[in-house]
Amino acid sequence: MEKKYKILVTNDDGIDSPGIFALASAMSQLGEVVVAAPDRQQSAVGHALTVARPLRVTKVKRNGALFGYAIDGTPSDCVKIALSNLLEEKPDLVVSGINHGQNTAINILYSGTVAAATEGMLAGVPSIAISVASHDTSVPMDAAAEYALIIAGKLLESKLKPNFLLNVNVPAIPKENILGIKVAKHSSSYWKDTYEMRLDPFGRKYYWFAGEYYLESEDDIETDDAALAKGYVTITPVHFDFTKYDVLTQLKHFEV
Amino acid sequence: MEKKYKILVTNDDGIDSPGIFALASAMSQLGEVVVAAPDRQQSAVGHALTVARPLRVTKVKRNGALFGYAIDGTPSDCVKIALSNLLEEKPDLVVSGINHGQNTAINILYSGTVAAATEGMLAGVPSIAISVASHDTSVPMDAAAEYALIIAGKLLESKLKPNFLLNVNVPAIPKENILGIKVAKHSSSYWKDTYEMRLDPFGRKYYWFAGEYYLESEDDIETDDAALAKGYVTITPVHFDFTKYDVLTQLKHFEV
Repeated sequence: MEKKYKILVTNDDGIDSPGIFALASAMSQLGEVVVAAPDRQQSAVGHALTVARPLRVTKVKRNGALFGYAIDGTPSDCVKIALSNLLEEKPDLVVSGINHGQNTAINILYSGTVAAATEGMLAGVPSIAISVASHDTSVPMDAAAEYALIIAGKLLESKLKPNFLLNVNVPAIPKENILGIKVAKHSSSYWKDTYEMRLDPFGRKYYWFAGEYYLESEDDIETDDAALAKGYVTITPVHFDFTKYDVLTQLKHFEV
Repeated sequence: MEKKYKILVTNDDGIDSPGIFALASAMSQLGEVVVAAPDRQQSAVGHALTVARPLRVTKVKRNGALFGYAIDGTPSDCVKIALSNLLEEKPDLVVSGINHGQNTAINILYSGTVAAATEGMLAGVPSIAISVASHDTSVPMDAAAEYALIIAGKLLESKLKPNFLLNVNVPAIPKENILGIKVAKHSSSYWKDTYEMRLDPFGRKYYWFAGEYYLESEDDIETDDAALAKGYVTITPVHFDFTKYDVLTQLKHFEV
């Protein structure tokens, strides 16, 4: 290896998740890895930040050696504090994952995995979010870890301006059945929200999210959901440019 | 008034915040208002969803009458559960705010106020997020409430396809000094992250977010931050289209 890269590894499933072990192990083949991750499960927290209370940082050991920093905050908090206080210098790469559950389409907005990579991007560091398309935490992570390594290597070599992050999704199928890597836009799949109303042991109502994910553009292999379902590892370059420019001019009559 | 609209009012500062009173009162001039908001302060939670635990919904009275529903979740949760379970029919409008503190530029990503309006948009309802540019909760809300009413009226009349939300920011200055409404793209202002390391009473370290907001394009009146600072109410049409299309083709060599 010509250069020993410095890589920040994080996730949203918490520092004890199998996914982050697999990812940190893969990334260590590219250079020096620092792990900074939530001290517990933080799925669906999106881009939440902790500002109203302080954060605690705890060193976590595995097999007698320092594995990383556990932080009692969100994935975004972890990357922010790692970049500003825990790392001695700016890393060459931020990689978030390996998430249990795909982060395609609108899930990009809710995903703590993607939010962590977003903080890397916003700090000007090439960044990757990687997820495997199964919520089963016993699903093998070897294929995802291998693709994370390939994609991280390519991104580091590409010298592209880091004004985007790579959102990577890996099918939960045996490695030998994966068809390859497909660069794809995100689909317009969406959640249809429902909440189940139940009664607690005291007869009081509570509501539990029971939304269903509706696939769109299922035949359009140029979209993340369709390519993933077909057996491809998908890469979507993601940015957050919120202005809807085509509507700007249509609103001119709002200017009173 | 020709039509009596149905309007869902929410926020991220919590149902007891002065901003949501002012907003609900203004919106009641347009039609029937239902309030569904977090039961406590939820700033900076972004698009976080509550999926791992159930939600409780409590009716809140003010002056002896039903004011709205308090929910022990995030702003996104509140809109989702209101649209799916609490309202009898789809509303004509979702309005979120009035937030204490401006939500310009990248703050759109972290803002619970904007996240709530996003859920309205995703459900196909015209939606508005409105914020006043001061964290001082005693700042008068009358100007913001008045502009919320003007802009809500215009949006309801416009019949534009609701594939965007309106992100409105109001300067914290006396109403008579406001220069008018300016439709503007969001600026590229950003946070420079720092965390203050302190010691607790037991001598243990803790870290507190102490980031600073850096203004960009301060002279470009076509951006939200600049127009707001000059004294305009700004309207930015916001969408979440994450794919960075110009990079898609540059990544073709990633396809192995």
